[in-house]
Amino acid sequence: MGTTEDLARWLVAGAPEDIPADVVHEARRALVNIVGCALGGARHEAVDITIAALGPMFGAPDAAVLGRTDRADPLHAALLNGITSHVEDFDDTLPANYIHATSPVASALLAYASANPVSGRDLVHAFVLGFEVTSRLGNATYPAHYTAGWHSTGSVGVFGAAVAIGTLLGLDVQRMIWAIGLAGTQAAGVREQFGSMGKALHPGRAAQNGYAAALLAAQGFTSGAHGIEGPRGWAPVTSAEHDLAKVTDGLGESWELHVNTYKPFPCGIVNHPAIDACIQLHDEHGIRPGDVAQMRLHVAPLVIDLCGKTDIHVGLEGKFSVVHGAAVGLVRGRAGLREYTDEAVNDPDVKAVRERTTREADDPSVTEDGVHVELELTGGRMLRKRLEGSLGNLKRPLTDEQLDAKFREQATLVLDEGAAERALALCRRVDELPDAAELVDATIPR
Amino acid sequence: MGTTEDLARWLVAGAPEDIPADVVHEARRALVNIVGCALGGARHEAVDITIAALGPMFGAPDAAVLGRTDRADPLHAALLNGITSHVEDFDDTLPANYIHATSPVASALLAYASANPVSGRDLVHAFVLGFEVTSRLGNATYPAHYTAGWHSTGSVGVFGAAVAIGTLLGLDVQRMIWAIGLAGTQAAGVREQFGSMGKALHPGRAAQNGYAAALLAAQGFTSGAHGIEGPRGWAPVTSAEHDLAKVTDGLGESWELHVNTYKPFPCGIVNHPAIDACIQLHDEHGIRPGDVAQMRLHVAPLVIDLCGKTDIHVGLEGKFSVVHGAAVGLVRGRAGLREYTDEAVNDPDVKAVRERTTREADDPSVTEDGVHVELELTGGRMLRKRLEGSLGNLKRPLTDEQLDAKFREQATLVLDEGAAERALALCRRVDELPDAAELVDATIPR
Repeated sequence: MGTTEDLARWLVAGAPEDIPADVVHEARRALVNIVGCALGGARHEAVDITIAALGPMFGAPDAAVLGRTDRADPLHAALLNGITSHVEDFDDTLPANYIHATSPVASALLAYASANPVSGRDLVHAFVLGFEVTSRLGNATYPAHYTAGWHSTGSVGVFGAAVAIGTLLGLDVQRMIWAIGLAGTQAAGVREQFGSMGKALHPGRAAQNGYAAALLAAQGFTSGAHGIEGPRGWAPVTSAEHDLAKVTDGLGESWELHVNTYKPFPCGIVNHPAIDACIQLHDEHGIRPGDVAQMRLHVAPLVIDLCGKTDIHVGLEGKFSVVHGAAVGLVRGRAGLREYTDEAVNDPDVKAVRERTTREADDPSVTEDGVHVELELTGGRMLRKRLEGSLGNLKRPLTDEQLDAKFREQATLVLDEGAAERALALCRRVDELPDAAELVDATIPR
Repeated sequence: MGTTEDLARWLVAGAPEDIPADVVHEARRALVNIVGCALGGARHEAVDITIAALGPMFGAPDAAVLGRTDRADPLHAALLNGITSHVEDFDDTLPANYIHATSPVASALLAYASANPVSGRDLVHAFVLGFEVTSRLGNATYPAHYTAGWHSTGSVGVFGAAVAIGTLLGLDVQRMIWAIGLAGTQAAGVREQFGSMGKALHPGRAAQNGYAAALLAAQGFTSGAHGIEGPRGWAPVTSAEHDLAKVTDGLGESWELHVNTYKPFPCGIVNHPAIDACIQLHDEHGIRPGDVAQMRLHVAPLVIDLCGKTDIHVGLEGKFSVVHGAAVGLVRGRAGLREYTDEAVNDPDVKAVRERTTREADDPSVTEDGVHVELELTGGRMLRKRLEGSLGNLKRPLTDEQLDAKFREQATLVLDEGAAERALALCRRVDELPDAAELVDATIPR
């Protein structure tokens, strides 16, 4: 026995009726959010480039791609769904381990469901299991895994995709062990890619390779028996410190979907307090770009580690820049998709404020979910905003209505309003659908 | 500047005429060896399983697969070539870093060449560059990378495949930097897979994903600029210690193909001295299974770390068992493909000797390329064999004739003798072929 086998036994023994109603509700919310994100990212140039580069390699067009008229074999559809749903950095985040777990898991599942008959109930079951495994492996290896430089959305998410697809394939214990092992030996993705298209490749590949791991295992492709815990298995190789009890303790008793969060702003989550605070300053004081003499952001060290970029030229870089987030918050009073385009990061007003903004980890009382903003106006006046717990965090979660609004904002970039409403309604009752392909179909522009 | 950019600049500035004649000759030898290995592994069940699992996802059958009548899109052909050429663990080895560099690089190139017009000269140029990059990155991160548990054939080989394909695509410096970064962020494969089919997945995925990295970069898919050396780039993330000067120092002056070796036995290379010694004992003394009371192998610690398996049930496990290698050497006087089948590891004679054999790292004078065998016969007689530098190592390299014989032994498993000779002749003059696809075609059973 060992972590891999224990986990496989629990997964294989599970059934849709084991998932509590409140977890199903949270799964619906996660799917509303991720399908919205996939629609919001569907026209990103990273997706067009991927199709231009790899399209000639696509297999039979058995699967639809969320938000696109392109079709692909299911593995490539999983890849594309992973890119579209993560490229704007607007997808969900687990604050305990910084994994965006829904993208790799749902991207694989919705590609599978597009090409194979799957009920919404089975899809939600598989999704909950894939999410659970991803987050638990993340908890077991955080912070060592992430600090080492792994982008855990890819390097952990691949397990979630594998077990989710493996669940739909009905793998037995031996084959589930192999699927987990084959996922772990394809785990990849480093943080050097933050700010480039490479970041979105990670959940895409995690979805695609996890899916393939399950297909291979189903046919008898063998793996080492201890893919997670073996001395040269995934956990010891990628994480200097880990506590594998967190993978299996209390399985079926607590559910990781309850500690998932949804972003109000499409960028690294540690930027959110600064953005939130700057939007409040904008709204309360009607700040104009020319009013800003200097802005100082006092943040936690992790904010600088993750989002310390200051020399910014393209939109994707802006997502990892707390000074950019603060600048658009202050100048535009919002931080939506339009604030993270190449145009927005080069907007002279935004740029001027950004260049007068500094970020320092010099106040130990500021947490990762907080900020202290000092804004000096040209007239000499000083404004201050201290904030703890920004919108979207576990204490201030987005409501169902806020998630619906976020969905609509993104979906209407590619769908007309009626189609967007229909897609939203299907996400909201995904677990009741006789065939989950209906949901995928509803995201295709006509 | 940095390692990634320095390397990209050197690669992009290169041309086929830069490759010295002796390096071209060694490239021919490497290709003779790897094509032979792909033919020897072409009927392994791991290949059949992969096609059963992923065949429904294959794209247009533009590329032939070495040694098979199946065709696939070039990315999947690269995957299959990587599996066939490595699954028997008979491919080449760099003793300085234990990477089997030809499999990931040539598997991608031969898939590409099957689907796109490429001269043999350009193919050899791209191969030499891909091999060079793989081995240099291996040298720069050995032993930390390997000791951590990475199977570097996959986790380093992906770079070789990317730069080799990138060379054929004519990438400029910026795009070569991206290709390297996108390779690094897909680097994967852990040693937990040794003894299972998962091990052969590593060069397969490295070939496929490196190839895809080059295709994506060619179309403008961006990557972080410091894929190798960035603080969260591949080298720091995967290797606690590394010396990146080894990647770029003396590029174009020394060539890693000169320190490549070819295996006489299809198993982990650190087993080879024990096998060699036991074959000598078999030949010199005509040992029969019933004669063996006990055999003690005194080996280097790395041999036990890599090939210490004793509880063996399937052929792939035997490849990582020095006691199995010694047993077949002693019992059968040979250690060819037939000594590493499921049948061979369960052969009662082999099993009986294997179970009377122990391996200990108790003699510091025994190197990784040596062994001290103590064989106690049932009559009480004691035989000893001490060996330094087994056949195939850099001091006793396989001759061209021995490589040809190795090729024929494997090729005739799938081709008739005439076809095997034609394929061998094409490998031997690969650099002269107007279209390298001719070589790939010659490996297909008719």
